[in-house]
Amino acid sequence: MNQRLEKLTSWMKNNDIQVTFLTSLENVYYLSGFYSNPHERLLGLAVFQESEPFLVCPGMEKHDAKRSGWDQEIIAYSDIQDPWELISKSISGRMNSAAKVAVEKEHMNVERYEKISALFPSASFISAEEKLRKLRMIKDARELKIIQEACSLADYAIEVGVQEIKEGRTELEILSAVEFALKKKGVTEMSFATMVLTGANAASPHGNPGMTKIQKGDLVLFDLGVVIDRYCSDITRTVAFGDINDKQKEIYDTVLKAQLAAVEASRPGVTCAEIDLTARRIIADAGYGDYFPHRLGHGLGISVHEYPSMTETNELVLEEGMVFTIEPGIYVPNVAGVRIEDDLVITSSGADILTKFPKELQIIK
Amino acid sequence: MNQRLEKLTSWMKNNDIQVTFLTSLENVYYLSGFYSNPHERLLGLAVFQESEPFLVCPGMEKHDAKRSGWDQEIIAYSDIQDPWELISKSISGRMNSAAKVAVEKEHMNVERYEKISALFPSASFISAEEKLRKLRMIKDARELKIIQEACSLADYAIEVGVQEIKEGRTELEILSAVEFALKKKGVTEMSFATMVLTGANAASPHGNPGMTKIQKGDLVLFDLGVVIDRYCSDITRTVAFGDINDKQKEIYDTVLKAQLAAVEASRPGVTCAEIDLTARRIIADAGYGDYFPHRLGHGLGISVHEYPSMTETNELVLEEGMVFTIEPGIYVPNVAGVRIEDDLVITSSGADILTKFPKELQIIK
Repeated sequence: MNQRLEKLTSWMKNNDIQVTFLTSLENVYYLSGFYSNPHERLLGLAVFQESEPFLVCPGMEKHDAKRSGWDQEIIAYSDIQDPWELISKSISGRMNSAAKVAVEKEHMNVERYEKISALFPSASFISAEEKLRKLRMIKDARELKIIQEACSLADYAIEVGVQEIKEGRTELEILSAVEFALKKKGVTEMSFATMVLTGANAASPHGNPGMTKIQKGDLVLFDLGVVIDRYCSDITRTVAFGDINDKQKEIYDTVLKAQLAAVEASRPGVTCAEIDLTARRIIADAGYGDYFPHRLGHGLGISVHEYPSMTETNELVLEEGMVFTIEPGIYVPNVAGVRIEDDLVITSSGADILTKFPKELQIIK
Repeated sequence: MNQRLEKLTSWMKNNDIQVTFLTSLENVYYLSGFYSNPHERLLGLAVFQESEPFLVCPGMEKHDAKRSGWDQEIIAYSDIQDPWELISKSISGRMNSAAKVAVEKEHMNVERYEKISALFPSASFISAEEKLRKLRMIKDARELKIIQEACSLADYAIEVGVQEIKEGRTELEILSAVEFALKKKGVTEMSFATMVLTGANAASPHGNPGMTKIQKGDLVLFDLGVVIDRYCSDITRTVAFGDINDKQKEIYDTVLKAQLAAVEASRPGVTCAEIDLTARRIIADAGYGDYFPHRLGHGLGISVHEYPSMTETNELVLEEGMVFTIEPGIYVPNVAGVRIEDDLVITSSGADILTKFPKELQIIK
C-alpha cells in the first residue's frame, strides 16, 4: 500500500472508521495514482481499515488504471452492469457490516449516497474531506517538481502577455495570444479562466476580460495558471502601459511592499494568520485597508484552491512542504487595480518562491 | 409566476409533492431567470405547491438576482450567516411540514441533503431531475433565438478553422486560431473543449488535439460549440486536406448519406429511435456498422448534453421545439475518422437545421 493510503488507514483506525469510499477525481487520483474523468459514470476508491482497497472504474478504463500503477483490485463495469452490485460483492468478501463510513459529503451526490447507505444500513456516515485536505496540504518531492514546472510555464505566460501589450489591443486579444503560446508548448488546460484586465476592469476584483482596449497610462493585470500532470500554478502580475500617475505608483509600491513582506515572513512555525496580517497591516497603514477585500492567498495543488487558506484568522501553523499563493491586492475604483501573486513552498527553514517573473514595476513603452 | 414555474407546480400537485428545492445552476436559471455561479456557496430555488417560491443567493448577488427579473422573495445571506437558518425561517412561514420533497439527487451533495432533510424530518425525498429534463426539452421562441445565434457562431468557427488549414500546422495551432477568432467576436465560453483532430487522431472517437501536424491526404475533423447567453451549440465538420483516397471518400460519403437521411426523417411524431436507426442502417448497410460506436445525437440547450437522447432504443416521440444534434460518425483506425454534426429544431411539420456550414466534401488545396 502506498504511503498516502497508509496515512488514510491510520486515520481510519484512530477514528474507528471501517470504510472510506471516495468518488472525487482529485482524491481518487491523489490516493490511487489513477486520474480519469468518466463524467456521469462512477469512479470510486474504497479503502478499508482491515483489508485491501479497491478501485471502481468504467470497463474501458481498466487498462489505463493498471498502467497508472494501481496494482490492487479493480472493479471494472460495462455500460450494462450496475457497478453497485459489483461493489456490494467485493465488500461482502471483505466484511459483514460497518459502524462508521467516511464519504465526501461536499462532493458525493444523493443518488450515490443512497446506494452506499444501502450497503451499510446500520452505519453512521462522516465526512472524509477535512482529512483529505490535510493529507494533500503537504506536498512530496514529486509533487513539488510538477508544481515547479507549472509555475515556470506561468512565468512564461506572463512574459508573452507583457510582450503582447500594444496600444489599442483588447484584453481578449492579449489573452488569446497568451493561451495560444501556451498551447504551442503543449499546455492543454488552464488552472482557471485566464484574466487580462486593464483600466477600470482591473480595479474591480471580479472583472472579466473583454473588448476593452489598452491605453497609455493604464495598468494591465494578468492572473493565470496552467495545469501540468494534474497540478496547478497561479500567478498574478500587474504592469504599466506607458507612464502612470503618482497615485497608481503609490498603490503599486504598497502592494509590492506587502507582498515582499509576506513572502519574507513565510517559514515553518508561523501561522497563516500571521502571514496574512503581515501584508494586511502594510496595506492598512498606507491607508488602503478598505481596498484589499480578500484573503492573502490559498493553498495550491491538484486543486487551484486547497489548504492552507491564508486568512487573517487561520491559526494553522506552516510546515515544510506546504504550497500556497501570496497575492495581496488593492482595488480603487476608477484609479487602479493592482495584485501581485507568487506561489511558494515552505522549506525546512524558510520558503522557496516558485514563480519567478520580476515584480518591480515594469513600464511598457 | 412564470410559465415554467407553473408547469413545475402542476407536476408537484399531480404527484403530491409539497416542496421542490433545486440547487443546480442550470435548473435555477431555467426556472428563475437568474444565472450565477457562486462556486462553493449556496444558490437555491424553493418552489411550493401552495405558496410563493423563493430564491437563495449570496448577499452580493441580490442586486443581480433582482435585475435578472426575479420579482419574488430573495433570501440573501452574508458570509457570516448560515443560509439554512434563513431558509428554515422562510419555509416555516409557509408550511409546517411536508410529506414529499423533490431535490436533484444526481446533483445535490450529501452535506446539503442532510440540511434539507433536517428541515423536513418526516418527508420522503424524490428526484426532480427527470421532470426538469422534460421541461427543458421543449424550447420556447426566446431560447431558439439564442441557440440559433450560438449555432451561427459555430458555423463561423468552422469557417475560420478551414481557412487555417495549411501544411505543417498542428492541431493545437488551428484550434487556438479558431478560439482566438471567437474571442474577438466576444465569445467567452465554449460548450466543451474544442477538438481539431487529424489523421490517426481523428480515427479515434476519443482523440485529443495535440502537436500532430496536418499533412496532405489527411482528413481534419472539427468538433466545437459556443455558449451564448447560457445556451450551447455543437457542430462537427470533417474536411480533406489535399486529395484523399477512395476508402476515405467512401467513408465520408456514407456518413454524409446517413446524416442527410436522419435530418430528412426528423419531424414531429417520429421516435428518437427511428431517427437513430435511419442513420445507423445506412452505415451498417455500407459495411461500417462496427465503426459507428456512439448514439446518433443528443439534446442541446443550457447543457450541451440534455434530452432528447438520440439512441436506437429511445421510444420518445419528437415534438415541436425539441433541439438536438444529428452526428453520425465512422472511425476506422489508421484509415479515417469522419463525423458530420448539425443542430436541429423540430418545427410544426419538420425540422429546421440551425448549423449551416456546407456538408459536401471540401478538399482544401
